[in-house]
Amino acid sequence: MSSAHLIDRVLAGDTRAVARAISKVEDGAGDSFVLLKALFPHTGRGLVVGITGSPGAGKSTLVDRLAALYRQRGERVGIVAVDPSSPFSGGAILGDRIRMQTLGLDPGVFIRSMATRGNLGGLARATVDAVAILDAAGFQKIIVETVGVGQDEVEIVKTADVSVVVLVPGMGDDIQAIKAGIMEIGDVFVINKADREGVLRTEKELEALLSLAERRDGWSPPIVKTVATESRGVEELAAAIESYREFQKGTDASLARRAAVARWRILELLRERLLARALDAEGADAQLDALALEVADKRRDPYSAVEAFIAAGVLGEPRS
Amino acid sequence: MSSAHLIDRVLAGDTRAVARAISKVEDGAGDSFVLLKALFPHTGRGLVVGITGSPGAGKSTLVDRLAALYRQRGERVGIVAVDPSSPFSGGAILGDRIRMQTLGLDPGVFIRSMATRGNLGGLARATVDAVAILDAAGFQKIIVETVGVGQDEVEIVKTADVSVVVLVPGMGDDIQAIKAGIMEIGDVFVINKADREGVLRTEKELEALLSLAERRDGWSPPIVKTVATESRGVEELAAAIESYREFQKGTDASLARRAAVARWRILELLRERLLARALDAEGADAQLDALALEVADKRRDPYSAVEAFIAAGVLGEPRS
Repeated sequence: MSSAHLIDRVLAGDTRAVARAISKVEDGAGDSFVLLKALFPHTGRGLVVGITGSPGAGKSTLVDRLAALYRQRGERVGIVAVDPSSPFSGGAILGDRIRMQTLGLDPGVFIRSMATRGNLGGLARATVDAVAILDAAGFQKIIVETVGVGQDEVEIVKTADVSVVVLVPGMGDDIQAIKAGIMEIGDVFVINKADREGVLRTEKELEALLSLAERRDGWSPPIVKTVATESRGVEELAAAIESYREFQKGTDASLARRAAVARWRILELLRERLLARALDAEGADAQLDALALEVADKRRDPYSAVEAFIAAGVLGEPRS
Repeated sequence: MSSAHLIDRVLAGDTRAVARAISKVEDGAGDSFVLLKALFPHTGRGLVVGITGSPGAGKSTLVDRLAALYRQRGERVGIVAVDPSSPFSGGAILGDRIRMQTLGLDPGVFIRSMATRGNLGGLARATVDAVAILDAAGFQKIIVETVGVGQDEVEIVKTADVSVVVLVPGMGDDIQAIKAGIMEIGDVFVINKADREGVLRTEKELEALLSLAERRDGWSPPIVKTVATESRGVEELAAAIESYREFQKGTDASLARRAAVARWRILELLRERLLARALDAEGADAQLDALALEVADKRRDPYSAVEAFIAAGVLGEPRS
């Protein structure tokens, strides 16, 4: 399929074309820039909802139920799940198969798992690009689900229009750390598994923490209690997401946030481009292998190895 | 303090010098390369133990107890805790204060929380550098604790000599994903909170998963049950760590692993160096701000913004 044809098919909302386009950006294919440049003017119509929280918080079920609700309202839903990946095999862990069982073969739902692939792979960058593709393809709601609270996850969640943080009652001794870490990210908080013991205490703790940290934009993040497995509270979650979206429209903070996100995206892309250019140069790979062996053997330190690599001048020059 | 003096003080094991040196690599200070190059020949003596697992698994307590055990044996222990960071304030979350309460003011224990700082901050790279500093300063055991299972965490754990993965009984619906994601990382598995219900089932599931994935080096990762809050199983954990260390010494896999780690380190350093060089150039920052605003305003897409930045030729040239 030619690039131009692929672009047309994506803009027409063809899910197979969307899948192919996402693979291209995930692989960092050379022509993915052409594709993304052409699609970018068509983005900005869908609502991007980021959902994050600890493993075991029931995010996947919550995402499925929220997606089902949006479907009932006649909207097309894209789901991008950021999987922790195996560092050795490089593949996504769960993949799409399990998710597909719940949401079935509904053509109005597109599900994709993202995982890091190799050294060039900016997982955060690839995820944001996948969201842009779904947006351009006319999906009205795009849900980005991330496992864990790592650096990449935080970056990804920051790029969403509305960020939802999922907690569960009585999570143990890391709860304070997690809460603090995601405090400033959450536009909406969910206490899932709200039929469990300790929900009141978790709610009180959360309220106390939220009251301490006043947001620059003046928004007070609502707390929604859900039991995702029984679809309880999912309508309320959708309403809370919508209310932040409405609030956001009237603030200046929105442009500042978009500019910060744009700066981050440019830096991520720049980082990848510069490294790719350096590694594309003739002989670069062999030199890198040789230096790595020297470092492994303790014949050289990694810092001077980098300097040697740069000094060897195999860095590619701008192609323009 | 001059660089040469700082190097001497670190090599002498002075904890204040160690703290200062780590701050330097965390900030990405220009002279940190000089420092690290000088320290590198003195590394490789300490044992680096990576400990990872989900939030709420009780890692911190386990790390504290393991550190206390090593202290009883007369060894100096360095602890590097990788914290999820606040994306807005950029600081570490819990910091060292809470940890200090348990391990007290023992001068034989050095504790440091690492967090990402700004766009240049390779958290994984900075953490690995901090470990190198502690190693050069003569700490016999260096424990790296990571929260979550994100990409950075995985990278960090891969650089440890021995990687410990901590699970708890009945972690909920993400357990399969986590297990699969960390399966290949774990040299030793811990089921903490082993006084809880469901420990047998978790153990059986883990054994089943481990039996499926044969490791290239032929090692069968042991499973250790602990109740960290009561210091139960901590001696067994130390013994399991030691047994893998012994096993490793006799294998070729050790060099291959070191070479892979070295390659990754060189690439991480290279990525940072190239970006730093690009951003150091005169006018680069202002151009970046201008481009970010254009992208935020939808007057330009991020992909052509990167191309514009590169084409503008403000990229620094090699300094040599």
